[in-house]
Amino acid sequence: MKKLINDPKDVVTDSLKGMALAHPDLLDVDVDTHIVYRQLKKTDKVAIISGGGSGHEPLHAGFVGHGMLDAACCGEVFTSPVPDQIMEATTKVNAGKGVLHIVKNYTGDVMNFEMAAELAAAESDVEVATVVVNDDVAVQDSLYTAGRRGVGGTLFVERIAGALAETGADLEAVREIAQRVNDNTRSFGLALTSCTVPAAGRPTFDLGEDEIELGIGIHGEPGRERRPLQSAHELAKELVEAITADLDFTGGPVIAMLGGMGASPLSELYLMYGECEALLAEKGIKVARSLVGNYVTSLDMAGCALSVCRADDEMLKLWDAPVKTAGLQWGE
Amino acid sequence: MKKLINDPKDVVTDSLKGMALAHPDLLDVDVDTHIVYRQLKKTDKVAIISGGGSGHEPLHAGFVGHGMLDAACCGEVFTSPVPDQIMEATTKVNAGKGVLHIVKNYTGDVMNFEMAAELAAAESDVEVATVVVNDDVAVQDSLYTAGRRGVGGTLFVERIAGALAETGADLEAVREIAQRVNDNTRSFGLALTSCTVPAAGRPTFDLGEDEIELGIGIHGEPGRERRPLQSAHELAKELVEAITADLDFTGGPVIAMLGGMGASPLSELYLMYGECEALLAEKGIKVARSLVGNYVTSLDMAGCALSVCRADDEMLKLWDAPVKTAGLQWGE
Repeated sequence: MKKLINDPKDVVTDSLKGMALAHPDLLDVDVDTHIVYRQLKKTDKVAIISGGGSGHEPLHAGFVGHGMLDAACCGEVFTSPVPDQIMEATTKVNAGKGVLHIVKNYTGDVMNFEMAAELAAAESDVEVATVVVNDDVAVQDSLYTAGRRGVGGTLFVERIAGALAETGADLEAVREIAQRVNDNTRSFGLALTSCTVPAAGRPTFDLGEDEIELGIGIHGEPGRERRPLQSAHELAKELVEAITADLDFTGGPVIAMLGGMGASPLSELYLMYGECEALLAEKGIKVARSLVGNYVTSLDMAGCALSVCRADDEMLKLWDAPVKTAGLQWGE
Repeated sequence: MKKLINDPKDVVTDSLKGMALAHPDLLDVDVDTHIVYRQLKKTDKVAIISGGGSGHEPLHAGFVGHGMLDAACCGEVFTSPVPDQIMEATTKVNAGKGVLHIVKNYTGDVMNFEMAAELAAAESDVEVATVVVNDDVAVQDSLYTAGRRGVGGTLFVERIAGALAETGADLEAVREIAQRVNDNTRSFGLALTSCTVPAAGRPTFDLGEDEIELGIGIHGEPGRERRPLQSAHELAKELVEAITADLDFTGGPVIAMLGGMGASPLSELYLMYGECEALLAEKGIKVARSLVGNYVTSLDMAGCALSVCRADDEMLKLWDAPVKTAGLQWGE
């Protein structure tokens, strides 16, 4: 295992220390609890929290800031954050207007966020609403999941719900749009290589020299099938077909993300995006907004995923609103 | 070779097609000439062009836009752009106030930009000034270089000169600050793995299972030495020592970038940044601004580089000015 780390057991702590130093004006990082808070807490809005296992950076800590999250709870690598940690974050960010939990659909995450929500309600009278993200069309159930996995679509949910929260909307409205974004989003990914979890020290799975895994999960969970490497054009077809077979995206505009898994260079991601957008256009699907880069990753896995969200005018407007986080940033 | 590409000979064209589709409001991409132009051309400013071999994305095409470049000339992978291409871009972006060429110090780049500048002056009466970036302290000469190589510091030069150009400063002022940034910037990188050039189809160099290359070039050129992998803390020491041995950064503030080579996950880059900033602090060097991520890359190489710029107040102010490009974006 070749990684830029110290002791594998300290990777999350060490990485958060670096994040704190890199973003002193944007983030307050509690290195002990592994909670990343937004600076300049706003007191007149619904607060939004997400979190999950580490290893998907910039998700979630990199999306803390204006227009997205108020806090992120970072678990160990590919390990759910714990209820106490989530409860602490929930209580701290609550400004009296309630807290939305954005939870990727993995059994541990769902359970621990649920427990934290109950604790926060019981002990501190915090009103919590939850949206569970389950956008991955690859498999119905998975290693760590009952139902579909939550993957790249989480970014869409965090961004659009985060933007609505900034307007002063109430908890039910923020929850509703988060759910709506999730319900209209589908994702599908593929891996060229495995990731390597630092504590394990070796690749999570083996892939042959010319083999890829279609429908890969962001923890290296098995997808739909392995097959020989194909051209970008052929692979893009697989991504687009998997998603469009699951939901009808024709008609309205969509937001499309071609996300890297962490170790594929940006030039390849742009190349794949071009193939995907052209294929979507052939199907009459019009991309209104797009994002290309590493956003919801899987450590050092090479590969990519396509996420598409069927967006209405409200979603597009919120997507365009200013956002200022470490991982996503744009102005008016 | 496992890459998300079609025919290796088309990688630059195919990637630029994707970039054009991904940024319709920001970029005008001439797919035939491999020139990326900024939309909304400003007519009252010095124009700035950069370019070089492809494979370092988001550099340079990803830095075209408000506050950085007016155009980028993309060569084939790790191959200089040609004089005609550079001349065409130079002529097109010139708004009568002259054009600055920002050139990384590689023999082919320097020669071709020089030839293009002469052609543009002779044929179209365009005034061209040039800054050659040579921030890499690793080696004095290299495979493709007489003198030091130009690497991560190019981003600092493009950003700060780009911001000054937006204010309406004249060509000499923009050239002067570009040169000043370069003169105050030092970089040093390391590789955990080789990159693989698509047309070659195999890794540029071989590294043992536990071996790293210190002082690596962004085309996989040899650095100072190979040695066994060490902890992030020890590796950060190497980066910081190499840079600070070359220039005295104590006293004034600095801008620091911990840049990934392309295939190292963001969590490792933050971790390395934390180690570097702490070591710089021990030496009395105060980081005023920082950047962590993949900015000046080497295809699918794993590894990182530290770039540090001794910044005066003017540079910091320009650094903070709004920038809107595909690869770097912030508001007021």
